[in-house]
Amino acid sequence: MNQYKKIADELSRLGGTIQVVTDLDILETYAKDETSDLSAMPDILVRAETAQDVSLVLGYCNANNVPVIPRGAGTGVTGGAVPVMGGVVLSLEKMNRIIEIDRENMVAVAEPGAITRDIQEAAREQGLMYPPDPASLDSCSIGGNVAENAGGPRAVRYGTTKDYVLGLEFVLADGSIITTGGKIVKNATGYSLLGILIGSEGTLSVITKIFLRLVPAPPVAIDMLIPFPSIQDAADAVQAILIGKIIPATLEFMERDAIAMVSAHLGRETPFPDAGAHLLIQVDGNDDQAVLDSLERIARIAGVDPEAMLIAQSAAQRERLWKARRSIRESITVESPVFLAEDCVVPRSKIPAFLTELKAYLETRGLRSVMFGHAGDGNVHIDVLKGGMEYETWKAALPDLKREIYRRAIALGGTITGEHGIGFIRKDYLGLACSDAEIELFRRIKKAFDPKGILNPGKIF
Amino acid sequence: MNQYKKIADELSRLGGTIQVVTDLDILETYAKDETSDLSAMPDILVRAETAQDVSLVLGYCNANNVPVIPRGAGTGVTGGAVPVMGGVVLSLEKMNRIIEIDRENMVAVAEPGAITRDIQEAAREQGLMYPPDPASLDSCSIGGNVAENAGGPRAVRYGTTKDYVLGLEFVLADGSIITTGGKIVKNATGYSLLGILIGSEGTLSVITKIFLRLVPAPPVAIDMLIPFPSIQDAADAVQAILIGKIIPATLEFMERDAIAMVSAHLGRETPFPDAGAHLLIQVDGNDDQAVLDSLERIARIAGVDPEAMLIAQSAAQRERLWKARRSIRESITVESPVFLAEDCVVPRSKIPAFLTELKAYLETRGLRSVMFGHAGDGNVHIDVLKGGMEYETWKAALPDLKREIYRRAIALGGTITGEHGIGFIRKDYLGLACSDAEIELFRRIKKAFDPKGILNPGKIF
Repeated sequence: MNQYKKIADELSRLGGTIQVVTDLDILETYAKDETSDLSAMPDILVRAETAQDVSLVLGYCNANNVPVIPRGAGTGVTGGAVPVMGGVVLSLEKMNRIIEIDRENMVAVAEPGAITRDIQEAAREQGLMYPPDPASLDSCSIGGNVAENAGGPRAVRYGTTKDYVLGLEFVLADGSIITTGGKIVKNATGYSLLGILIGSEGTLSVITKIFLRLVPAPPVAIDMLIPFPSIQDAADAVQAILIGKIIPATLEFMERDAIAMVSAHLGRETPFPDAGAHLLIQVDGNDDQAVLDSLERIARIAGVDPEAMLIAQSAAQRERLWKARRSIRESITVESPVFLAEDCVVPRSKIPAFLTELKAYLETRGLRSVMFGHAGDGNVHIDVLKGGMEYETWKAALPDLKREIYRRAIALGGTITGEHGIGFIRKDYLGLACSDAEIELFRRIKKAFDPKGILNPGKIF
Repeated sequence: MNQYKKIADELSRLGGTIQVVTDLDILETYAKDETSDLSAMPDILVRAETAQDVSLVLGYCNANNVPVIPRGAGTGVTGGAVPVMGGVVLSLEKMNRIIEIDRENMVAVAEPGAITRDIQEAAREQGLMYPPDPASLDSCSIGGNVAENAGGPRAVRYGTTKDYVLGLEFVLADGSIITTGGKIVKNATGYSLLGILIGSEGTLSVITKIFLRLVPAPPVAIDMLIPFPSIQDAADAVQAILIGKIIPATLEFMERDAIAMVSAHLGRETPFPDAGAHLLIQVDGNDDQAVLDSLERIARIAGVDPEAMLIAQSAAQRERLWKARRSIRESITVESPVFLAEDCVVPRSKIPAFLTELKAYLETRGLRSVMFGHAGDGNVHIDVLKGGMEYETWKAALPDLKREIYRRAIALGGTITGEHGIGFIRKDYLGLACSDAEIELFRRIKKAFDPKGILNPGKIF
């Protein structure tokens, strides 16, 4: 503790606009992100306001071998921002400006602490769209989105964060500030640092500025909820829709248990109480007619009576549909504050086999599960509830349970995580998906960026 | 030479299906790629047929400090496949199978030597499309496309190679074979090796298998040629079209000199001889009406009389339009076998300033230039012809000339190269676009993948 007292003093004297916090009440609020059942106290909190601040802090910490845990809005769910080995939490929350919306070049420039929703709205005011839409978009920050390569429902049509980052300003562990890319949509000048930094979970550098590609906002979007008898039927419809050359903006899947739980939580009737699964589909486009045509084709391809679909006709109805989708995790938390949140990926055609067999397996273990997610890109959320199980029994069962879920996804040609990352809670399982040679390469890459290993230690591997 | 005699003998005894060639006549055909005025003889040519072959060759060469230059189809234009320091050229030409078109998951799996056009056609037979379309697509190989992150006219709508690579099998310098990704469209499991390998120009690993995302093939595509009085007018139209929420499949730009030269070369009349610039626009979509509507909107937005546009009504007419576009470089080669081919990128809004000022500058130097390229993404080709200039004068003038072109692009917020890469011929200029700290980071990344520096030495930096 004395050691960190000295470090806090020295950090305070670095200059710039650095704010050093050691008040325990405040530190405690930085001990957690949104990962279930995980917290660890930081020794010091530093709030930076500029890239220069970040450079000063990292330069000092690197020279003194002090761990630094970069933190955006703390909405991650794999412990990426939790200081599991103590150290300095470096918060980017004050670097939250949207610096520019360049309508002409369709580029947004933002600081890492800018809230994703705010960027979307600033773009929308210029007739533009920033497509990635993680469920936490009202509270997550763009820097965290880049660090985790955040996805969201619209990924099936629009891709994930990596498809929108045109440039980054970032700070290496040794304090050097580097800018790569910018307001340009193509770049073949040297290695793609963007490529390796996006999704590196705060272990390679601290991002201080982000250039984002925007696209024209489609003026029309219509949402619909379609019920299916089973997961298999819903998955078949997803395949048929995509093969039928319709790429909706979203192709979200929710199985019966997800719907039931969220309905109970929100105190609402389920529109299709007998359905085994639902698809929540949004189609967007340039005009009403084109979008309505796509809706009709989807109904035909999916073999669904248009009468048996719920089409959101107003903003209020749309919000109602999406509120249910976005509240699934909240309803799970209320039902069982301790739960396992997995987001495996499998080849799209393997979704039904993966989910139905996994659900049956979980039932044999006496565990209740909720499955939902991005059917269009094979990325499914599998939340397993502790429920009434004894905490110690649950904790003891977790490693085998995780291993079994990952093993099944990998056996089907998939992998451990599609958007949440490895973070802290999955690092013991990385070897299931990656060979020793690959993990050894990760370590060498880590060393190239952060030779002394001060950045977010204890994460990924 | 004796040293390489011994190496050739030892390579021949490695086993596998390795073919070792030392015949000088054959080696000579591997001394060049399509870079103007550059060649260097390999000491040995090795043709591999499997990843295991590649592993054996690299393992041996790494142990013996022998340079290895991976080679696809040799269509690069920055010397990436030229053995500038001698060594072993490792050709992937025999690994040219399209292993699978998985219609259900919309994924192609191919070996690196597969020709890009063949992959496109195999996808098309399944109603799918592989969008990237470098001008050399009839002869370039997909491995080279990945190594260079190849683009093409369709990049404005569909992106570049990096937007389609879902997985790679690759071999490190030490011979270890790693597979990352696969038939999955999302992946957050460890660092994105795809992100750093794509565009690494054969300096980090040798790619032996590629998983590509395919998309539904749009059934309708219409092409049109629109004349404009000046580069500025054409660029204004590009901005207006994109801001008007139309993202055509291509937005290709050709200035007067490009048109004139290619018309002379192909022995054709120019449809709009007085135009200062042309846009070659392709619009694609799901049905005729939607595509025709977009065409009309483009004409309206661009302020062009539909009578004054050339619309390709048949496959033959379309081929005629595109033949002209794709023959620009060929016509330049005929006119002046020695020329400079640059592909700078600038923010889209800066294209007119960049090109008109650069053209004026080149004229003051007595140099003829031809400008064309991807107006929709700010990536423009600037070919400067040696013409009648003395070779020695030209060679002496090149460094300053290149520096001036790059300096102007960078000053406008752009960079040196958008799709051709740095390769050999631009490595002395990397420092104009990248800081010392960034280049030092490139070197450390290189070392993480290839500690002894055997892979494609003398390239990028």
